[in-house]
Amino acid sequence: MRKSNKYALGVDVGATIVKIGLVNSKGKIVYKTSLFTSSLKTKAIFIERVIKQIRQIVKEKELLKKNLAGIGIGLPGSVDYAKGIVHNLTNIKNWKGIPLRGILRKHFDFPIHLDNDANAFAQGQLKWGKAQGVKNAICVTLGSGVGGGLIINGKVYRGSNYSAGEIGHVCIDVHGPKCGCKSNGCLESFVGNKYIVNRAIERIKNGQKTSLVKKVNGRLNLITPEMITEAAKEKDVFSVKTWEEVGTYLGIGLGGMVNVINPEKIIIGGGISKSGKFIFSPLQKELKKRTMKQHLKILKVVKADFVDDAGVMGAASLAMERR
Amino acid sequence: MRKSNKYALGVDVGATIVKIGLVNSKGKIVYKTSLFTSSLKTKAIFIERVIKQIRQIVKEKELLKKNLAGIGIGLPGSVDYAKGIVHNLTNIKNWKGIPLRGILRKHFDFPIHLDNDANAFAQGQLKWGKAQGVKNAICVTLGSGVGGGLIINGKVYRGSNYSAGEIGHVCIDVHGPKCGCKSNGCLESFVGNKYIVNRAIERIKNGQKTSLVKKVNGRLNLITPEMITEAAKEKDVFSVKTWEEVGTYLGIGLGGMVNVINPEKIIIGGGISKSGKFIFSPLQKELKKRTMKQHLKILKVVKADFVDDAGVMGAASLAMERR
Repeated sequence: MRKSNKYALGVDVGATIVKIGLVNSKGKIVYKTSLFTSSLKTKAIFIERVIKQIRQIVKEKELLKKNLAGIGIGLPGSVDYAKGIVHNLTNIKNWKGIPLRGILRKHFDFPIHLDNDANAFAQGQLKWGKAQGVKNAICVTLGSGVGGGLIINGKVYRGSNYSAGEIGHVCIDVHGPKCGCKSNGCLESFVGNKYIVNRAIERIKNGQKTSLVKKVNGRLNLITPEMITEAAKEKDVFSVKTWEEVGTYLGIGLGGMVNVINPEKIIIGGGISKSGKFIFSPLQKELKKRTMKQHLKILKVVKADFVDDAGVMGAASLAMERR
Repeated sequence: MRKSNKYALGVDVGATIVKIGLVNSKGKIVYKTSLFTSSLKTKAIFIERVIKQIRQIVKEKELLKKNLAGIGIGLPGSVDYAKGIVHNLTNIKNWKGIPLRGILRKHFDFPIHLDNDANAFAQGQLKWGKAQGVKNAICVTLGSGVGGGLIINGKVYRGSNYSAGEIGHVCIDVHGPKCGCKSNGCLESFVGNKYIVNRAIERIKNGQKTSLVKKVNGRLNLITPEMITEAAKEKDVFSVKTWEEVGTYLGIGLGGMVNVINPEKIIIGGGISKSGKFIFSPLQKELKKRTMKQHLKILKVVKADFVDDAGVMGAASLAMERR
């Protein structure tokens, strides 16, 4: 690696894949690799494999203190940003209050920064993406969960104990379904991956017609959000309506958040955002209904930069940002 | 007035009363007067009467540039804090985009600061009240409307065009009633004064028993929130349950906000907060259900300082705070 340039190593721990990328200071990924999260069943294996993978890249790319700004890790769970402790980690068994930064420090002589994946996502958009130069923004990742990262006064806002931004757990329907967080009617329980698919399956079982059934040869449990988007593009009315509903729910939740945060931008990323206009159009429509006049005046809704790499970029930006 | 001390004049424009108070630097009101808002029917009369009243106090109290830090005004409506323009003003006819600060400046040679009343309330709590030394807080005023002022990183957060904090207009029920803001299911449409009373009246008409009926000699439209609190104190089950419901709705709305903002404190003021434990107990109970583990750990819910003077104190603090 060129010594004149500074790189950052970003580790994006996702529900299915752990992505690791080496990012240069201009925000370009120069090297990328990944692990299957499902292969990292215990916390010991998780930590061991991540260390091994990082060590390999450090060696292969000749990374030294002078050309690597640091290692940034974005994790789906509750992270103490200041102390580098990961309180809990989705999909890894028995994970509880692990001082991950301290553990990694024993292995690497680089600055190490940990954060919740949605905050990392927001930091990445702020550093290299759609939030550059933006004062206040709501960043949203739509996937199996609904993650949120707030940008307030030009910085990622983390709250009083680093837990801010949980827009997936704002109740939009007092009579709504049970949510994974044990509350009910949360935004996530309407627009999280599995909830979208489950509602679709239920409707198909109730007799609604859709080309999705043929796509999965009648095995409804194989339906994915990607398929619903594909079918929507092929003008399957059921699928278009499915996204319409998701966009509307999202607008209800985000409309309230806009009234509270009064941002210039909503920046939307995550797998679900690939459904594009099918979700953005109803979202925009609902936001017009739900947000107050002054708030709407300055609001822009945009798709995040970096698509599938937004997590890695975000993680790397954590290390690029701090000294 | 003693020259060694600095005062600030606070003007709190309320739905029924305009309160004016002279506050010293320690946060003590040394003089107070008021006008009925209903007597200020047009914008011309409103502006004229407010000017006259301020002028009288300035003369009577011998206020000069050296002993008056400035004039702060809190208004129920949309205020451009930077430009001193009041976009709209509840209860005053034809009010639209009035450059109130500019108008007042022609009459007074003091710094003049205008803000939304909920932001002013938050500023007052930050300067002299329950938010002193607090990093992040959600301040709430419960009255005819539900006002919100956010404290972020130790300062009142106003948003990208000075419209932040509208927690009354977060949807908590997609199927909820129409709200004054034209959306539906907003928190305000469940816990605003008139909605509380209207729901109570409806239930009485549906045959529910309560001592309130006797209190108003059967004239149900005379029921006020204060009466419901009085009856609750006298163990009227209907009234206790009415507040229980309000506290629960409030918990649903604020629970979501806590998950997003992750504050140390929720500070509750406004007329409705006088119902005390009748609203605070169910609120706390619901917050425990709705807020995530990390968030709940550090959260305190407290009653605001200054009760009925919180608006005047807040308005005065606007002038005390800025130079």
